[in-house]
Formats: sequence, C-alpha cells, structure tokens
Amino acid sequence: MQRNTGHCTNVPRNVNMESLRNGYLFPEISLRELEHIQKYPDSELIRLGIGDTTNPIPDIITSAMAEYARALSTVRGYRGYGAEQGNKELRQAIAETFYEDTGVKGGEIFVSDGAQSDISRLQLLFGSNVTMAVQNPSFPAYIDTSVIVGQAGEFQEETGKYRNIVYMNCLPENNFFPDLSTMPRTDIIFFCSPNNPTGSAASRLQLEQLVAYAKAKGSIIVYDSAYSVFITDGSPKSIFEIPGAREVAIEVSSFSKFAGFTGVRLGWTVVPKELLYSTGFPVIKDYNRLVCTSFNGASSISQAGGLACLSPEGYTALNAVVDYYKDNAKMICDALASVGLKVYGGRNAPYVWVHFPGLKSWDVFAEILEKAHVITVPGRGFGPGGEEFIRISTFGHRESIAEASRRLKSLFIHN
Amino acid sequence: MQRNTGHCTNVPRNVNMESLRNGYLFPEISLRELEHIQKYPDSELIRLGIGDTTNPIPDIITSAMAEYARALSTVRGYRGYGAEQGNKELRQAIAETFYEDTGVKGGEIFVSDGAQSDISRLQLLFGSNVTMAVQNPSFPAYIDTSVIVGQAGEFQEETGKYRNIVYMNCLPENNFFPDLSTMPRTDIIFFCSPNNPTGSAASRLQLEQLVAYAKAKGSIIVYDSAYSVFITDGSPKSIFEIPGAREVAIEVSSFSKFAGFTGVRLGWTVVPKELLYSTGFPVIKDYNRLVCTSFNGASSISQAGGLACLSPEGYTALNAVVDYYKDNAKMICDALASVGLKVYGGRNAPYVWVHFPGLKSWDVFAEILEKAHVITVPGRGFGPGGEEFIRISTFGHRESIAEASRRLKSLFIHN
Repeated sequence: MQRNTGHCTNVPRNVNMESLRNGYLFPEISLRELEHIQKYPDSELIRLGIGDTTNPIPDIITSAMAEYARALSTVRGYRGYGAEQGNKELRQAIAETFYEDTGVKGGEIFVSDGAQSDISRLQLLFGSNVTMAVQNPSFPAYIDTSVIVGQAGEFQEETGKYRNIVYMNCLPENNFFPDLSTMPRTDIIFFCSPNNPTGSAASRLQLEQLVAYAKAKGSIIVYDSAYSVFITDGSPKSIFEIPGAREVAIEVSSFSKFAGFTGVRLGWTVVPKELLYSTGFPVIKDYNRLVCTSFNGASSISQAGGLACLSPEGYTALNAVVDYYKDNAKMICDALASVGLKVYGGRNAPYVWVHFPGLKSWDVFAEILEKAHVITVPGRGFGPGGEEFIRISTFGHRESIAEASRRLKSLFIHN
Repeated sequence: MQRNTGHCTNVPRNVNMESLRNGYLFPEISLRELEHIQKYPDSELIRLGIGDTTNPIPDIITSAMAEYARALSTVRGYRGYGAEQGNKELRQAIAETFYEDTGVKGGEIFVSDGAQSDISRLQLLFGSNVTMAVQNPSFPAYIDTSVIVGQAGEFQEETGKYRNIVYMNCLPENNFFPDLSTMPRTDIIFFCSPNNPTGSAASRLQLEQLVAYAKAKGSIIVYDSAYSVFITDGSPKSIFEIPGAREVAIEVSSFSKFAGFTGVRLGWTVVPKELLYSTGFPVIKDYNRLVCTSFNGASSISQAGGLACLSPEGYTALNAVVDYYKDNAKMICDALASVGLKVYGGRNAPYVWVHFPGLKSWDVFAEILEKAHVITVPGRGFGPGGEEFIRISTFGHRESIAEASRRLKSLFIHN
C-alpha cells in the first residue's frame, strides 16, 4: 500500500502511532483464521477466540429497542440529540442496579458506546504526562491507548514492554494479584476484574489492599468491571463496594457481555465526585467536559435497550443467558482439567486460561488451530505475562462448546 | 463541587484540559434556557439553538432498524461484534451514494458513531506535534479537541485565540472563504462546507484553490461535509469531487442531519489510500489501527438504519425531509431580510447567519431570548469571527418556524 511515487504531504506521522507494536491482536487472529479456512475449506472451525457473545438477546429487550426505533417515525416519538452523558433514567437505573449501597449516583454515571471507547477517552482525559500501571497479562487496549496518547515511552524488544509502563504481574504463583509492596508508584492503575484474559476475580481483601495502596500513593485506579456479572464466588462486582474507593477510583463497565450488546454498543463509566486531582480539582468536571466535546452520546436506541435490560424481567432473562455461558465455561474447564492441563479462570469469568509451561503461546495457538480446528487466543497477545498461556472464550452455543471440549481433550490426551 | 477537605490524589490535572476555555457552547446555552424558563414559565419558547433535527425519520428506515433489533432475539439473526470499520455493505453503499465518480472505495470509508467522535479521533491520530488551521467562525469541536490533544498552545485573552492555531477568517467581506495567499502554513486544515455556523458552501473554484494550496504546502485538509445534503446551488458536496483531493484530504460526514440520526448516532470518515505522511506512510493504515484500538464500531442497529437510508426509497424519503427544512430556512431568511437585517446562509445549509454590526453576539442572543422567547446561538461561541452574528437553526416544525419568523420580524421592526 506504500506508494513512494505519489505526492507526500509534509505532515509528520504521529510518533505515538509509530510506537505501536505489531497489529492489534484480534485483527491478527482474524488473518490466521482466514489462512486456515483457505487451507482447510471443509474444516468445521470453532471460534473461541475473540470474546464475542453468541446467544440471542431476550425478546423483552429487543422489543424495547424495536419499539423505540419505530417511534422515531412519529411526531410524538421522535427524539434528536440526547444528553452527551446519557439518558437520565438509564443513568439512574445503572446506579440502582449495579451500585446499590455504594453511594454511586446517576449523575456520576456517563453512558457510552462501550468500554473500549471509554478507555481511550480516559487516556485522553489524563493526557501524556501521567504514568500508568497495567496487569500483565491484560486486555491490549489499555497499553495501546496509552501508547497512542504518548504515556508509554520506548518499546523494549528484549522485555516486550514499554519503558514507562509498570507491568503488574498476575500469574498463578501470585494468585493473579500483583505484589503491591514492590510496585513502583504510578499515577494511574488500570485494573480489570474479573480479569481478561486470566478469568481471575480479585477478592474483597485484595481490592481493599488495592484501594489502600492507591490512597497511600495518591494514584487513581481505573477499574474495568466489564465481566462482573460472571462472578459467582462472592467477590466484589464493583470497586465501589470497597470503602474509600470513591476517593481513588473510576469504574468502566459495559452491557456487551452482560446483555449480548457487543454489536449494539452500550457501556458506562463511573466518575465519583470525591475523586480529585492533586490540585483539588474534581476529575468528574474534566471528564464531563471531555465527553461533551468529543462524544455525542450513545445511540438512543441502544440506550432504550439498556433500560429494558435493567427492568426486572430483562434482568432476570439476562441472568439466565449468563448462567448458560457459565455452564459452557465449566464444561471447557472440566474437559481440559481431565487431561491434566493447568486450568485457571472460568469460574468468575467467561474466559478459561490454560497454562502450557515452557511453550510459546503462538505455537500452542497454531497447534490447536491446525489439529483441533479451534480458534483460541495466544496469551502473548495480552503481554509478556501471557507467554505460556492460551485464552479460551466460552461464549458459544452449547453444541460447539461440547464439540470443542471433545477436540481439545482428544488433542491433549495424545500429546 | 471542589472539596478541599477530602483526599486529593497525586495525579496532576491534564494541562490540556486546563487550557480549555469556559464551558462547551451548547451546555452553556442550555443553562441560559433553563434560567429563562424559570423566569417565564408560561412563555412558549422556540428552540432554534442547537442544530437538532425535529422531523420524524421515514418509516422505511425505522422499520429496518426495528427489524434488525428484533432479529437479535433469534438464533439466525443474532450478531455480536461487527467490524470496527463498519459493515462492509454499508461502507459500499456510502461509497456508491455519496462518492460516485470520485474514486472513493468502500474500503476507504470508516463508519462511526458520528462526526464529533471522528473529529476527536482524527486529532488523536495526528497527535500534539502538528499545527492546525480552522475557519473563524467554526464549530467549536475542532478547536476544543485540538486543545485536548495539546496542539493549541496558550490561550490569548486579548484576541480570544489559541497561540498555535491559525484562524482562517470567513466573513461577509471575503465571501466566507479565507485569503489563502496570506495564510501561514499548517499541517492540518479543518474546513467545513457548508459551514457551520455561517451556512456558506464553498464553490468549486474555491475548493480547487484549497486543494491546490494544500498540495503546495504539504497540508492535510480535514473536510467536514456533514451538511452537504443541503447544498442547492451546485457547489461540490464532497471534497473528493475536486481532482487531486485524494492526495491531500480526509472527509468527515454524518447521517445526523441528512437522516435525522442525531440521536441514533451514525457517521463516517473517508481516508483515501493516496494520502501519505511526509515519510510516505499511508494515513489510512494508522487511522485503521486507531479505530481498531479505541473504538469498537457503530451500533449495528444504527448501521442497519444507515443502509436503509441509502436504499432508493429511503433516499427519496429523506430528501423530502431535507426539502422541508430548506423551506424553513427560506421562511426565516425572508422574514429577517424583510426587516432589513443582513442575512447569510440558509440557501445551502440549515443555518441562517445574521449580522448585527457593532453588537455583541451574547447581547443579541439575550435580547432575542428575553423579548421573542427564541433560543438562537451567539456567534461568539463559534470563535472571535462570530462576534457580531447570531446563528439561527432552521430545523423545526413549520408552525414553530412560522411563529419564530413572526416574533423575530416584530422584534426587529421595532428596533
């Protein structure tokens, strides 16, 4: 695509964009998938790679969206721009459904088109002069957006890390929770729980330690709770369940996995009024300004759907879908454990994290694809801490999950 | 809201956010509106401020969205994540509908949640080390997002301008087109045509000059064509109608005003493959990477609606709505001209730009609100070049527009 014969502008390429390594993980996996299909056109490929929801959305929710959409053709039902921060009723319903007893108010909730966009907006909010820490492994968007806004510094080939980013190792040996006593201070701490990709949910005690650490160091936690509905063991579903979190944390969350809204696009970010910059200026004021300037609100139809998700009937129906995925996760975990693999996650998250000590994750990915015709995600795509691991998404129809379990079991029995 | 008694983090406030002046324009107007309603609870306020569509969306379009939404409840119709760049069929349809004979291909179109988000993403793409020019007056998001990414430099109270931004005066005396011969070079030139707020559409000759200028200076034009469907005088509707534009321009556009999608949220950005950085690296590659990293695609339901907009029936129905607004604009223009006011715009745009020589625009805004109970937009909100002007949006139901015309006429006859 590079054309040296044509006109070049005199506009310099953004050095931050230039600093991004490789392709973004999921497009790269899509390429591998395409190559595989070309090689084996008749293979019945099972996709447990990208964590994409597969079950239909309960009718009560899609009916609400359809009804809202249809009403846009009527004089009474037509609505133009909504508030940039989201529909007031939806903000209130999110506060009541997910933040009961935590003190989070509707006015602190910013409805968005999804967590990925919000992560990018938060990076833009903090700018290039802050330092950040991220779980290792972690969802690639935290680091990539950090690079794009210019916080990350030079990439170091030997370690696979950016110089200015602190990588918090979350590995089986530390029970997937970083050793805070040895961690260098950063301004921002991205923390995803249940974690993507490890599937590990931080316990109440761990989160209390994290909040105390942030308070002592003057850091801001950006807590990603996009998978919190999958928690089954009583771990906190929001950072705001921890006393003191309102002074040190922002929370990003999403309807994507909870409601099958990956394509519908709806999420939110909570910025508590007590969260202050070093000058005493409230973070929420700047975030509000940013949202009003660089975003124009989530789709009104998606927001109507979000409201239906939080109705008693919608909420009950969605929990049944989540339970279905949880049963999937159990099936995959049991199959892999039965052939002696070291399996993590799956209990509080739709991701199963499988350890292959001594192996390279892209090699394991390639072998599983080649021999079992199953797409997974190589752990290395989530950072150097994922090198010996494979992430398996357990979103899928039951028959596919059962078939994948059989294939994986059979592959690893013979290994 | 500032609480000096609570815990402050040690995170510095982003100096770029600190550099933003005042509130964002439209929230400020909303505050004035609220105050007015409290003062005159029985006044029949007419809102011609924010350019918000008011007419119902043709049924063929909302039916397509409703049908898509409903199908998400079925195993066959359920879809999760779509491509970050947008639905392929929609990208193709946009290319065919709006870019026939310009060489723009579907693969160069990035479907988004709207032009405002795209402007912010483009600023992030170029980063803090580029210089930019903007029309004066212009839609505030260009400058505000420039400040947020750190391009703008210090704000100078005496001029009302940011030090590093070049303000291209677009005033009646230069026929709303900048004098390129005296303009300092910048990397990026934001250019909106038909312009918001002046309502002026650049002619083919003017755009040829602009493209030639950008080519000679090695600049990139970010062309905002969000109002192009309102063009009636044969002026180009896309920068890509100008030969050579593919090497120097990006185009941002939107379904908001064309299809009444202000709340539905759908837009797009065109990045031609021939557009290269000074190093020869294609801009489209970085933009694609940025979109994949910090955005997860527009709502699939909105995209289904977008596709219906571009069907022959949808397109015809929408043009009837646009014609309705054009008739509104004519009514307002005629009324104001009949009392001797200097009226611009309205012919190729849904905005009427009224000159009040020697007056301050916030004073005129306040007088119109106080005496005619009509919300407009003070031109100063669009930059120093708007100081003596008022923008009147002509989106509205016919009766409101007729009533507003009467009230304004009566106000200014007695002035």
